[in-house]
Amino acid sequence: MSTFPYQEFVYLGDTARLPYGNKSPETLRRFVHENLRWMEDRRVSSVVVACNSASTVLGDLSGELSFPVFDVIGPGARAGVAATRTKAVAVLATRATVSSNAYLRAIHAVDPAVSVVQVPCPLLVPLVEEGWVEDPITRLVLERYLAPLQKTNVDTVILGCTHFPVLKTLIAELLGPQISIVESGPAVAEQMKMGFAKSLLGGSVKALLPRIYVTDLLPQFGVLAAEILGPECVGPIEVTSVAEEKNERTL
Amino acid sequence: MSTFPYQEFVYLGDTARLPYGNKSPETLRRFVHENLRWMEDRRVSSVVVACNSASTVLGDLSGELSFPVFDVIGPGARAGVAATRTKAVAVLATRATVSSNAYLRAIHAVDPAVSVVQVPCPLLVPLVEEGWVEDPITRLVLERYLAPLQKTNVDTVILGCTHFPVLKTLIAELLGPQISIVESGPAVAEQMKMGFAKSLLGGSVKALLPRIYVTDLLPQFGVLAAEILGPECVGPIEVTSVAEEKNERTL
Repeated sequence: MSTFPYQEFVYLGDTARLPYGNKSPETLRRFVHENLRWMEDRRVSSVVVACNSASTVLGDLSGELSFPVFDVIGPGARAGVAATRTKAVAVLATRATVSSNAYLRAIHAVDPAVSVVQVPCPLLVPLVEEGWVEDPITRLVLERYLAPLQKTNVDTVILGCTHFPVLKTLIAELLGPQISIVESGPAVAEQMKMGFAKSLLGGSVKALLPRIYVTDLLPQFGVLAAEILGPECVGPIEVTSVAEEKNERTL
Repeated sequence: MSTFPYQEFVYLGDTARLPYGNKSPETLRRFVHENLRWMEDRRVSSVVVACNSASTVLGDLSGELSFPVFDVIGPGARAGVAATRTKAVAVLATRATVSSNAYLRAIHAVDPAVSVVQVPCPLLVPLVEEGWVEDPITRLVLERYLAPLQKTNVDTVILGCTHFPVLKTLIAELLGPQISIVESGPAVAEQMKMGFAKSLLGGSVKALLPRIYVTDLLPQFGVLAAEILGPECVGPIEVTSVAEEKNERTL
């Protein structure tokens, strides 16, 4: 949002059906489709699918829509390739993202010579949602997930899940200073700036707070949203229905 | 199933939308309603809602249905009250179950003099689903969750989530032999036997494997189902849709 200060943002969190990281491609495709239709009804000019697991199923869907869709995997993969000197990159992600091989394909599309180690880290999302961020238990879990990387020549680690940047300090400490850590967020903003979105940069009236919608509202959502989006970005939160809109539409 | 060997069983796992343990009462009510309507379409004679978080929202729903609905909270609460000598019981459960105070109310309905310590344990479900059952990290997480019980006179701990019996050995070891552990499963079967279900006990033809349906099928589901239901109970697994049936119905 700091990259596009004059744009309005609509944020949709499908909290009633999360986490997306342990669902099948078929179910993810159905849910993401419903979410994008909801966005279409809001007449947005473009959508960032800011979830790696959801990004893995965009291939078939984006052609059907009236607006461009940005995913977080392509930009993250390109940033990873740009950062590595040893031509060896690791991706920390959910089980759904790892199973999809989306990062593997995206990295090889840029440079087939880069080797990729994919590390499924399913417990990191619940640990972040529990708020155990600087915690000896989270450190132990990360030590276990990161252990296989010690036997490799990986010099770049991509945080392939929107929750993981919250753990970046701990991950950096465990990996040591010789390993670069790449996040998708800044890479996506850069991608949007370079691409079609030049017209979105200008303006003179600073936009309002993002409009935040969720499919299920729990007290802890506000805390987590502040942690991930930044507290200055979190205003009122509204509850919406995604699936029912889709069903009305198909009649 | 061993209590009713001559009955057919239909099992529905709403795997596309799980976990239920961190959703709001409104969303749980909607999901449980859809699941019960799905069961109604299968013309079952009764339903056991074998999920504590889902059981917390049954109050308003069961009157609308054509079959009796058994929940897991009442029987677990009664078994807990029967087991305690110190009149102090702890309930380990998800955040949704703890927030609902359903165990507190169910225990006080039997004996208002019993004090109840509710312990939200949100990480246990992901740890079980990750397969880290006999694991030093799971032990550390449990030690942290169980620590507050040491300052109480609790002598009975209710496992208030269907996933937790998988961790019973570890929980028993950490609590020590002076504390009883109560599971809902056997208590529910006992309740059904005592109640309306006498006619279900008889028969001469041993029933087939349960028909297992899920709303999303992932490879690890079979493994987890075998762990929770017992490997002898897991046959073919079919994918079904719950929410769409509900939407067809409401037109």
